[in-house]
Amino acid sequence: MSALVQPVILCGGAGTRLWPASRGARAKQFLALESERSLFARTLDRVAGADFLPPLILCGAEHADAVRSHPEAEGSSLLVEPMARNTAAAIALAVAAVEPTQLLLVMPSDHIIADLAAFHAAIDAASILARGDWLVTFGIEPERPETGFGYIASGAPLGESGYTVDRFIEKPPLEVARELIDKGGHSWNAGIFLFRASAMRDAMLVHCPEIYRAAEAAIAHGVGKGSSLYADHAQFASAPSDSIDYAVMEKHDRVAVVPVAMGWSDVGSWEAVHGLAARDDAGNACAGDVFLHDSRGCLVRPQRKRVSLVGVEDLAVIVDGDDILVMPLSRSQDVRAAASARR
Amino acid sequence: MSALVQPVILCGGAGTRLWPASRGARAKQFLALESERSLFARTLDRVAGADFLPPLILCGAEHADAVRSHPEAEGSSLLVEPMARNTAAAIALAVAAVEPTQLLLVMPSDHIIADLAAFHAAIDAASILARGDWLVTFGIEPERPETGFGYIASGAPLGESGYTVDRFIEKPPLEVARELIDKGGHSWNAGIFLFRASAMRDAMLVHCPEIYRAAEAAIAHGVGKGSSLYADHAQFASAPSDSIDYAVMEKHDRVAVVPVAMGWSDVGSWEAVHGLAARDDAGNACAGDVFLHDSRGCLVRPQRKRVSLVGVEDLAVIVDGDDILVMPLSRSQDVRAAASARR
Repeated sequence: MSALVQPVILCGGAGTRLWPASRGARAKQFLALESERSLFARTLDRVAGADFLPPLILCGAEHADAVRSHPEAEGSSLLVEPMARNTAAAIALAVAAVEPTQLLLVMPSDHIIADLAAFHAAIDAASILARGDWLVTFGIEPERPETGFGYIASGAPLGESGYTVDRFIEKPPLEVARELIDKGGHSWNAGIFLFRASAMRDAMLVHCPEIYRAAEAAIAHGVGKGSSLYADHAQFASAPSDSIDYAVMEKHDRVAVVPVAMGWSDVGSWEAVHGLAARDDAGNACAGDVFLHDSRGCLVRPQRKRVSLVGVEDLAVIVDGDDILVMPLSRSQDVRAAASARR
Repeated sequence: MSALVQPVILCGGAGTRLWPASRGARAKQFLALESERSLFARTLDRVAGADFLPPLILCGAEHADAVRSHPEAEGSSLLVEPMARNTAAAIALAVAAVEPTQLLLVMPSDHIIADLAAFHAAIDAASILARGDWLVTFGIEPERPETGFGYIASGAPLGESGYTVDRFIEKPPLEVARELIDKGGHSWNAGIFLFRASAMRDAMLVHCPEIYRAAEAAIAHGVGKGSSLYADHAQFASAPSDSIDYAVMEKHDRVAVVPVAMGWSDVGSWEAVHGLAARDDAGNACAGDVFLHDSRGCLVRPQRKRVSLVGVEDLAVIVDGDDILVMPLSRSQDVRAAASARR
């Protein structure tokens, strides 16, 4: 890598898909799921090398303490969002806060990337394009016809590892997802980006100027406390809420994709957690005091309770404080029903 | 009823079939299962009328406090067993403690009897036979080819409602159970008995004299405290452990059965609890803070926790302190595996 990259870690979301473990201040990124360490800590690990500047971490005030409590975050700067305004405004804050020439690597804090070497190689490839003022998105080589992600269609080659983006495709129905995979040249949109700050700023000033201006003013009127900058509430509140995909990436003409296979997962459901976790011979993933009798394929998070399973299969049993969730792993998407009823 | 009957309530068992709710000092009889009140309290209700003397309650020392904490037990006498020695020795204690001419109605404290009038009518019928020195057992009219109970084959009629016992049949395989029901004249052995104390004493002196002599000595050397009598430890310890069926009923020649249909259940499993409990339209029986989404036929006892079920069917979720049991109701018999591992 020829120039240092500035990691920008989006740590704002809460996420109800892993309810009851994730909620409120205990967001998904702070959970230890298939490892002993939190997703957030492992995100920081990925950009801890000499090729990276100390990370800039974007989070809400409710998560600032959790961020600071991570020893891995030492040396990082915090950029505190006064409220959640989706990814476009969050990225605009980061862009407005750094030197315009800086290369920014923007990534969520609640994903898993198993193949670090592949990720770093993709960063190298994306950096070359970003220095040519391309807004680069990382495309995940699809492993299955997933209907829960958007897809990116690659266009013309750009150098050895990148492509122009032909188009962004919304979460497709299963049949369409199968076609995309059969056809080839399509990757999952994972929400990981690399670009020069000035290139994103200029694109935002064309496609979503209200968002950028609000973020810029929120930084200008922000209040610094040690290594934290609290963006101004009133200014940021005027930023429309939109995703970076809708607000910029789908509209801009200089957008590139670097496809990569790097063992990526967004750990977007209890079923995904079960798939990633260490399992015994019967396919059970249990962290804690669990008694199993004639039970297979289960995910159990007993916390400090004692869970006993007798004769069950493919079930999630998730304990969190006073809440106990019982659900077939295959119904993991329906956890929202319980999450919104319980909070 | 022409003479007062002395109820003898066997309150000694613990029972692991309803683990984790029942264990240790919190025995099954003290649980509120399908009603707000405990099985023990409702057992006392059944013999609270003017036709009955105040009950004699047999229990272990570990259950004496739970017995006394029931307002329904006020006026009862306690006979405290120094250790569990099965039903023959327990009944021998009661026999040795009362007037020889007394009619004793012996019954477990952890059953349900829905039809009280039918029960009382059967007591009337059994009392007539008991006054003729028959040892009478109550036979439950079978509702299904149950393999979990012993059966009683009726012999020759004795008056209007009773029969001699032709034979006792051990818990049969399913095919045999079906045959017994098709044939008619067979009832379930529910462990409820009515007899004159002297008749049982004389039968025991023939069939199991060691048990009776040990019980008699344990009473003679017992220590009274208020309305409680603590049987002597050393004396009672010398009593062989045997069931009243094996020790006396199957051997004696003057044994009668009074068949009765009275909505009886031994509430012997979580599946039975679910069958007896009030259920919503989807067949769920939930007492407490339970959130249900697309879930049917479940039994949930959340205690003071909050249980959320998403997309599950016919499941038991039983919370007790730090223990959480998850099991298909159809696997209720296998709860012993968890109970013995967890205690």
